[in-house]
Amino acid sequence: MGKLLIVGSMAFDAIETPFGKTGKILGGAATFIGLAADQFNVESAIVSVVGDDFPQTYLDIFTDRNIDISGVEIVKGGKTFYWKGKYHNDLNSRDTLVTELNTLGDFNPIVPESFKDADVVMLGNLHPNIQMGVINQMEERPKLIILDTMNFWMDNTWTELINVINHIDVITINDEEARQLTNEYSLVKAAAKIQKMGPKYVVIKKGEHGALLFHDEHIFFAPALPLEEVFDPTGAGDTFAGGFAGYLAQTKNISFESIKNAIIQGSNLASFCVEKFGTERMVALQKHEIDKRLLQFKELTQFNIELT
Amino acid sequence: MGKLLIVGSMAFDAIETPFGKTGKILGGAATFIGLAADQFNVESAIVSVVGDDFPQTYLDIFTDRNIDISGVEIVKGGKTFYWKGKYHNDLNSRDTLVTELNTLGDFNPIVPESFKDADVVMLGNLHPNIQMGVINQMEERPKLIILDTMNFWMDNTWTELINVINHIDVITINDEEARQLTNEYSLVKAAAKIQKMGPKYVVIKKGEHGALLFHDEHIFFAPALPLEEVFDPTGAGDTFAGGFAGYLAQTKNISFESIKNAIIQGSNLASFCVEKFGTERMVALQKHEIDKRLLQFKELTQFNIELT
Repeated sequence: MGKLLIVGSMAFDAIETPFGKTGKILGGAATFIGLAADQFNVESAIVSVVGDDFPQTYLDIFTDRNIDISGVEIVKGGKTFYWKGKYHNDLNSRDTLVTELNTLGDFNPIVPESFKDADVVMLGNLHPNIQMGVINQMEERPKLIILDTMNFWMDNTWTELINVINHIDVITINDEEARQLTNEYSLVKAAAKIQKMGPKYVVIKKGEHGALLFHDEHIFFAPALPLEEVFDPTGAGDTFAGGFAGYLAQTKNISFESIKNAIIQGSNLASFCVEKFGTERMVALQKHEIDKRLLQFKELTQFNIELT
Repeated sequence: MGKLLIVGSMAFDAIETPFGKTGKILGGAATFIGLAADQFNVESAIVSVVGDDFPQTYLDIFTDRNIDISGVEIVKGGKTFYWKGKYHNDLNSRDTLVTELNTLGDFNPIVPESFKDADVVMLGNLHPNIQMGVINQMEERPKLIILDTMNFWMDNTWTELINVINHIDVITINDEEARQLTNEYSLVKAAAKIQKMGPKYVVIKKGEHGALLFHDEHIFFAPALPLEEVFDPTGAGDTFAGGFAGYLAQTKNISFESIKNAIIQGSNLASFCVEKFGTERMVALQKHEIDKRLLQFKELTQFNIELT
């Protein structure tokens, strides 16, 4: 059993999809990452910040799962990060209606002493200086540092982002972000350029079209499971990252073969996340459901090639 | 060795991409299907129509490969179907600049006697009444009838299209066409509806995002091989169909497992087609190149799942 350190937002999300809308519900990158990683045999901790408007029942979700939240700062009189968004009919794009950074705007992450030797560090989407600040607090170089980011940081904190990218092992970004980061349309060329920036592994997320893993000359592809209905895509990317990180923290094996399996595990968990609003499906998820769907992934992709 | 009957256009294409432009070169659905299917151990024939402006050197490409073109009508004084198109920068969309149906407008396909017992019939994208006319000429029900079509026929010949779809085994269409045909956004739901219209197998082509195969409750996914450069997408869909049909005509095995392999073979051949203008790459393609890339497909998708 490995140690996994998770850094990211905890949030209130208000979501509108073609199928319905919610009030303020539990959200945030660290939330989805933590719940996904908890499906593996890992010791994990979350470093985040919330206001004192964040309900105890939400915090209990993590402590009930033995996820260490001693690194979640609760700012007295502060308000929790709030995001409100509305998805378009195809669920592939969305408009952000409200972003209130609140306490997240002054987030100064403190890594708990007992996790300064974590095997795997999962840096959720945050200001690259905050991500770098976490790396600097580690006592020894973790086996694996995974970073998620987005176009906002490319637009606004380019230098800081390039710096932290140079210190990590795996980057997870979507296809458009990979193109923006490299000015290359071809994802093969983009991934090659990103590898030269530091990360040995580049994971390019294509939403409903799956995810690509690039490492040296190797490419691996994991499809998204075709679903009858996608109900709410919120958190799918973080759930993917959490499954990926959780699996690798459990196995402590960072070979290419193992990382391929991690991509499948992440894709598998993400396929559940989108079935209900927010964290609802992930909180209720059972091991036997996960195993059953892993077999579907196998059926979806495996074939016996015959050379003609 | 099975018999494959191919019906579709033979054409002059003029193509403009961000990388260059061509004059009138060899194109057409039957052309690409025939060249792809020729990579397999099959006896194949093309039924098509051209004008007497169609060069003998183009016809020789088929006869050199022992592809029967006795069913290609050469209309005296007629002109060959001509298409001119320009691809946008991302190569995912294109504008049609010129469409001159010419002799294709009066195409009355005649199936050669020796192919009225073909094992597999591949109906390239054409007016559904022409496709149906070919089915009606077969002496006995072929083992497998594959149909390609497009949105144009949904817009203009709905009833005729629904009729021919009810007589075939496999339909290949792209994602947007599957949605248009069924009024369902979810491809899982769309494929289920299409199966109720007749075809036991539904192949949904997603271009650079691969292809999905649906059959009863089973889903199989074949990615497109990530390429450094896509040079010219013209003919990729027909090459996919030709590889699919050619493989199945060779094996004469139409089990789900075999059809999965056919999808991979089609995807593999399509990955070559896009590397050069028109048919250039397919005409030069060698067996050892095909085999090598099949192994890349295997590396791209195969993993050893471990249940946690």
